[in-house]
Amino acid sequence: TSPAGLSAYVAVSQLLGLTLLVTTGAWLGRYRGGVAWHGSLQLNIHSLCMVLGMVFLQGDALLVYRVFRHEAKRSTKALHALLHGLALVISLVGIVAVFESHRSEGIPDMYSLHSLCGMAAFVLYLLQWLLGCGFFLFPGASFSLRSRYKAQHVFFGIAVFILSIATCLLGITEMLLFKIGASYSHFVPEGILANTLGVLLVAFGLVMCYVLTREEWKRPPLAEELALSMDFKTLTEGESPGG
Amino acid sequence: TSPAGLSAYVAVSQLLGLTLLVTTGAWLGRYRGGVAWHGSLQLNIHSLCMVLGMVFLQGDALLVYRVFRHEAKRSTKALHALLHGLALVISLVGIVAVFESHRSEGIPDMYSLHSLCGMAAFVLYLLQWLLGCGFFLFPGASFSLRSRYKAQHVFFGIAVFILSIATCLLGITEMLLFKIGASYSHFVPEGILANTLGVLLVAFGLVMCYVLTREEWKRPPLAEELALSMDFKTLTEGESPGG
Repeated sequence: TSPAGLSAYVAVSQLLGLTLLVTTGAWLGRYRGGVAWHGSLQLNIHSLCMVLGMVFLQGDALLVYRVFRHEAKRSTKALHALLHGLALVISLVGIVAVFESHRSEGIPDMYSLHSLCGMAAFVLYLLQWLLGCGFFLFPGASFSLRSRYKAQHVFFGIAVFILSIATCLLGITEMLLFKIGASYSHFVPEGILANTLGVLLVAFGLVMCYVLTREEWKRPPLAEELALSMDFKTLTEGESPGG
Repeated sequence: TSPAGLSAYVAVSQLLGLTLLVTTGAWLGRYRGGVAWHGSLQLNIHSLCMVLGMVFLQGDALLVYRVFRHEAKRSTKALHALLHGLALVISLVGIVAVFESHRSEGIPDMYSLHSLCGMAAFVLYLLQWLLGCGFFLFPGASFSLRSRYKAQHVFFGIAVFILSIATCLLGITEMLLFKIGASYSHFVPEGILANTLGVLLVAFGLVMCYVLTREEWKRPPLAEELALSMDFKTLTEGESPGG
């Protein structure tokens, strides 16, 4: 059975995640004219894809080791890689959308803090995925190499997730100041809705990071994994199986 | 002796911290007219105080258990509380500055995502400090209560620190869009300097969190603390000292 509390926190995280997707859709649909690949609505594709890919799916991919804690590591790992892969593809579509939208509107690229943070997050995310596949999916990497890289993989995974959320907050602020300008300070409905989205993003990140970093909620190794790692240790360190 | 690498990472964090303070000063001094308590420069006091209090000092307060790892826990704890207290006072000055500046300029309060995130960070930070004092400084709290709260204290400590940095990034974006507007997209020097400050803030947060979360770098309990905690366990759980 799962540890007490974990299921409740996971449920809250998923509720927050779905609410933030709906809120993003509501904002773009109700106030920003919806989404379309061609024309002036292409920027909205960017917003939708980044929240879906870099926040919701990336977050859920981090969570699989907590949720499917009693499944075989092999299948959990495959799901982890698959969800991150899907998140990467959706994010790439979002990035292409903003560059195309800038080109058609004559707006320069990569001048803002939002774009710098976002590009850093995406490049690190892609790197992290490639290194993750190289170390953990292909059979070449040794056991000791894997366990040494694992701590870095986990740290940078959470760091990129947090940076992605911070980048969304910057994007919301930019969008509001560009599109509704001074009326933002008069508590217009669009401003309140977008602020709510920002608060939901922070709450999602907080609950996710709480679940991911809580010591007692980490995935315990299965009996056969423990036996396997013992064998590997014995092989690599040359100790007797009893030591 | 300290673990390998820790000193280097701490040195890098301090270098980043000082550089981001200097960069904040350079931005406000060179492009925003400097700081003054009365008049139109009061907003700049806000920026300076928040970076100094909520980022640099808060970060360094989190670091004391890593840096002074072989000192008595009592004195390290006092320094931790003192640095956070100082950070809180400086941040409070910064918050008063922005409210006064808004009042004198006729700008509404608390309408933006920056202000919501910032207020949440400050209130949580104050609460965290009060709870920290209550649990860990006053002698009333039991050993088991302290150890149960400790994990929460550490998690929320790092969370508030990260939220503070995200709030600074939002503040930089707001300031640039309000003050230099469309010329931001033409890579003017002020925009580049402020973006650099943003990148430095992210780098500072990243290095800090790496140092704080790395398992091998956590402060090991001193011999007398271990003995003491054994005694407490024995007393509270009613086991024999040998168990």
